[in-house]
Amino acid sequence: MGIRFFITGGTFDKEYNELNGELYFKQTHLPEMLVLGRSRVPAEVTTLMMIDSLQMTDDQRELVAKACREATEEQIVVTHGTDTMAETARVIAQSVKGKTVVLTGAMIPWKFGSSDGLFNLGSALAFAQTLPHGVYLSMNGRWFAWDNVRKNKSKGEFETL
Amino acid sequence: MGIRFFITGGTFDKEYNELNGELYFKQTHLPEMLVLGRSRVPAEVTTLMMIDSLQMTDDQRELVAKACREATEEQIVVTHGTDTMAETARVIAQSVKGKTVVLTGAMIPWKFGSSDGLFNLGSALAFAQTLPHGVYLSMNGRWFAWDNVRKNKSKGEFETL
Amino acid sequence: MGIRFFITGGTFDKEYNELNGELYFKQTHLPEMLVLGRSRVPAEVTTLMMIDSLQMTDDQRELVAKACREATEEQIVVTHGTDTMAETARVIAQSVKGKTVVLTGAMIPWKFGSSDGLFNLGSALAFAQTLPHGVYLSMNGRWFAWDNVRKNKSKGEFETL
Amino acid sequence: MGIRFFITGGTFDKEYNELNGELYFKQTHLPEMLVLGRSRVPAEVTTLMMIDSLQMTDDQRELVAKACREATEEQIVVTHGTDTMAETARVIAQSVKGKTVVLTGAMIPWKFGSSDGLFNLGSALAFAQTLPHGVYLSMNGRWFAWDNVRKNKSKGEFETL
Repeated sequence: MGIRFFITGGTFDKEYNELNGELYFKQTHLPEMLVLGRSRVPAEVTTLMMIDSLQMTDDQRELVAKACREATEEQIVVTHGTDTMAETARVIAQSVKGKTVVLTGAMIPWKFGSSDGLFNLGSALAFAQTLPHGVYLSMNGRWFAWDNVRKNKSKGEFETL
Repeated sequence: MGIRFFITGGTFDKEYNELNGELYFKQTHLPEMLVLGRSRVPAEVTTLMMIDSLQMTDDQRELVAKACREATEEQIVVTHGTDTMAETARVIAQSVKGKTVVLTGAMIPWKFGSSDGLFNLGSALAFAQTLPHGVYLSMNGRWFAWDNVRKNKSKGEFETL
Repeated sequence: MGIRFFITGGTFDKEYNELNGELYFKQTHLPEMLVLGRSRVPAEVTTLMMIDSLQMTDDQRELVAKACREATEEQIVVTHGTDTMAETARVIAQSVKGKTVVLTGAMIPWKFGSSDGLFNLGSALAFAQTLPHGVYLSMNGRWFAWDNVRKNKSKGEFETL
Repeated sequence: MGIRFFITGGTFDKEYNELNGELYFKQTHLPEMLVLGRSRVPAEVTTLMMIDSLQMTDDQRELVAKACREATEEQIVVTHGTDTMAETARVIAQSVKGKTVVLTGAMIPWKFGSSDGLFNLGSALAFAQTLPHGVYLSMNGRWFAWDNVRKNKSKGEFETL
């Protein structure tokens, strides 16, 4: 059946605007990353929004959950900013049943060369294919259940509660 | 308990010798790749050999299997050249029980910038944590049981039999 | 006699802080860039400051000029933010005589992988060795006399007046 | 009037064939490198051949010299393998007058991420604009007159005789 990717933005997809020195979003790099990883998993990619997760509203989180509910695929990967990834996971978990949903992101933009994004994408894609139904975060090579994870902002990594 | 990584070489770890224009092995890049991926999975890395998998002898395959048997970890990732990865998986499967062993590699050397290695490493690490005991290959974002996989050399990708 | 490099910061040396998503300065990447370029030009590197050139004060520009005056080398490359590079060049030109001073920088940070920095460094180093005494900017593969250049901020490139 | 680039291949433009693990030539990366460097020097790029310079015949060297003679531009950059760069420079010098011709190359293929190619290109482009008429090599951040240079093959760098 394949994997559905939902894109919401986050550091993962940020780019550097050389005219004003600020970071911004253009379009997702996920398809080219799947090509680079030589992924042969059937996949469809849908961009829901392109935002910094600190700006994500409740309505937008609900929109992500709705997209997961309505997807025909049972295995879903959501790319998301790390700052509020756990909050969106909680909202998804409230209404999405019978699917494996894995949220992932990056600490360094993919375009910056030294990103963890490709590693995280490889992990998330694997976890989405193997973990039982439920909602998870995949970061730091690990998976976390949605109700047992937080971002440690001083370390820049995820940990169990 | 953590993951044990066994390094055997393969394209994954090849480097370019600028003095003679040939590819060669220096030392594994796996530790720096785990740092780049910000992996926080407890891991130990052991280099068994640094060879092109087309050169791997039966004795060397048995040495890899022995290392897997004797490892105290239940979850093992073996980096390996893609050309004979399936053969080594078969040898490991003959004698290693009660563990999850995932072989992975790369089509492009990690040092060459456009490698699939970091993606594959992320996937293999995730599969090693989630698949039931057994011996598997992880390439192209997918996992394959050791007895149902071959490399399609004209396409440069792995497929089921 | 060799080349003297004076570092002042600028986009060239900016890095991404993964904890807060902001750009900042750590230390100059110029030495590693010279290694990557396999430069064999005798060179000494001195960091004068690490700032965004929009923040550079008159006193700091004078400090750069003073460093150029007092350097024993006749050939000097100054790395500098692009926004006020032309202003600093003017200040240097007022008091530095009998030397070739070339200012250069980058539109994209070196650490971001897709930077123009290495190209600009190669050009600046070459111009410093071949142009007659005077003060110049080197960007976009070209050289500009200090009194006949401006940054076109909407295009992100340099042009003659 | 601008710069004419003549492409002959060399390590500069080598790529990795992931199906057989060998290095090969596809097409030149020079145009994308000029884009990355944000070069605004008027330039035209002509591919003469795509070969390893160890394979270059006398006829092919003469072909390069002929292309330099017939070019309408006065400033020419030739990309070339490093192993016989000095020999081709000698052939060019025998018949090309009234022009500045700069040969350059790379020790590491541009596609491999850690290449010196972009640095060398920046230098060569600058030297072509500033050196008096003559034939030169540009490597290691330096320029060499065609009759006073050799490649030190054990060090992988260029030096005067």
